[in-house]
Amino acid sequence: MSFRLTILGTSSALPTSDRYPTAHVLNVHERLFLIDCGEGTQMQMRRYRIRFGKINHIFISHLHGDHFFGLYPLLSSFNLMGRKSPLNIYAPAPFEEMLARHLKDFDIKLGFELITHGLSGRSMKLILDDKRVQVFSFPLKHRVKTFGYLFREKEKERKIIKECVTRHKLSISEIALLKSGADIVRESGEVIINAEMTTLPPPGVSYAFCSDTAFFPKLASYVAGVNMLYHEATFGDDHETLARQTGHSTARHAAVVAREAGAGRLLLGHFSARYKSPVQLEEEARQVFPASEAAREGETYDI
Amino acid sequence: MSFRLTILGTSSALPTSDRYPTAHVLNVHERLFLIDCGEGTQMQMRRYRIRFGKINHIFISHLHGDHFFGLYPLLSSFNLMGRKSPLNIYAPAPFEEMLARHLKDFDIKLGFELITHGLSGRSMKLILDDKRVQVFSFPLKHRVKTFGYLFREKEKERKIIKECVTRHKLSISEIALLKSGADIVRESGEVIINAEMTTLPPPGVSYAFCSDTAFFPKLASYVAGVNMLYHEATFGDDHETLARQTGHSTARHAAVVAREAGAGRLLLGHFSARYKSPVQLEEEARQVFPASEAAREGETYDI
Repeated sequence: MSFRLTILGTSSALPTSDRYPTAHVLNVHERLFLIDCGEGTQMQMRRYRIRFGKINHIFISHLHGDHFFGLYPLLSSFNLMGRKSPLNIYAPAPFEEMLARHLKDFDIKLGFELITHGLSGRSMKLILDDKRVQVFSFPLKHRVKTFGYLFREKEKERKIIKECVTRHKLSISEIALLKSGADIVRESGEVIINAEMTTLPPPGVSYAFCSDTAFFPKLASYVAGVNMLYHEATFGDDHETLARQTGHSTARHAAVVAREAGAGRLLLGHFSARYKSPVQLEEEARQVFPASEAAREGETYDI
Repeated sequence: MSFRLTILGTSSALPTSDRYPTAHVLNVHERLFLIDCGEGTQMQMRRYRIRFGKINHIFISHLHGDHFFGLYPLLSSFNLMGRKSPLNIYAPAPFEEMLARHLKDFDIKLGFELITHGLSGRSMKLILDDKRVQVFSFPLKHRVKTFGYLFREKEKERKIIKECVTRHKLSISEIALLKSGADIVRESGEVIINAEMTTLPPPGVSYAFCSDTAFFPKLASYVAGVNMLYHEATFGDDHETLARQTGHSTARHAAVVAREAGAGRLLLGHFSARYKSPVQLEEEARQVFPASEAAREGETYDI
């Protein structure tokens, strides 16, 4: 049972000698979700042993190159590796026509199905609902249409109190019913009350991804109560004006969002090349929200 | 005075954990020529300390992604680094319209002039002629229109025989005339014969780049007498049929071209991911042309 995040890149648009552009891999019970796909993502996936075949969903925040220049080479590699299973791509609409045109330009004929999901709208939307996880998109505020993503593990089953199994001689089907939350009425008329047999399931964990965005108060409501918030922090306090001008955030902005949202932890990234080390950004965020840290490439975070 | 080649990538279309796709940097007396630009080229340039500002000419062999997916991110980085000087790009025509369209799709507004040179034709052509070097394009034989490139250092000046300077009391302007190949007629009527005062200049060195291509006999004539030949060697003898089917060469094919061309040395690259090490390819090439070696990433070769 896992819900963990691997960071493949922490740079903003201009990569540095030790920072790749944005790409995250979220592992939810061995389903791998790739979030943004900057140049070199597939090299980073190889370096950090991310299994290509386990990725069936790719989420692109927006169509600036540092968030998706790695997509075409990755699709090409999937192809060369003989992929057959369908691949879902989520990105701001209308990217589907552009994607098809570029694949033709690049002479890439995919041997697998590409299922495109063009995102639009100005509210939070459920875009993926599978057995274990729900994914929502929500609007960010950047120079081009940009979306954040919220990954929420589905609520687990209720937990059976062990001694009840023997005391009431519960059958396997009765246990399944109780786990799903139902009471049981036996043929004898005996009623077994769920609340006496089970305890609340552990809450599903959640991860939100916000890149790139200017600060706006409503953002905190989209990511309220999230266990881990990733938020871009392109600049520090020293370049707050530049942040506003370019549709980006400072580390302090990110921390305000985390605090307002009641997030568990804050992970910072998308650092401008002008910061040799993200220590300053980390410190500025911690002044507002102590559980802040700068993302490190190749690191895996258990959420 | 330098004429040296740095290898940034040796993989074919599918990169591996230790091989990047094709990109070469040729340094001719501190003019840097970038040849092909696969994904991650700018990361490799940083890793191997290639100076971005010294690149004014980029040569793309063909529009398959593993040879140019790194171009857009590189252009974007040039832009973010504040580049102002014009940049020349050479690639099979008509790539100019596609390039302009993609830059628009990717929201990249360049702050410097892009000078595009669309290549066409079925013969060798002089495409760049500057003070120190001439560059020629020539057709290769691949699944899409593809060009090889030949870089030829211009012939240097003749060398003055030292003792002649004092014996004939040569003035500075007379020395310059002799170096350029002229005879001298002094006001006294004395004639100074160039051939008696000078020796032949050292020949200009040359480098040829051939990727990707199927074997064809005429190729050797395009690269005749080249000091160093780079030739793709995607496959070994074990996959000669696959090489023919995909428009690629075996290491042995590359070596035949080098031998027929009378090349000084042969550098192999563009290795299929199926070869964990290129040792087999190197050995097969050496059976035909002993001065063969597998290119190594990050290595600089003096030519």
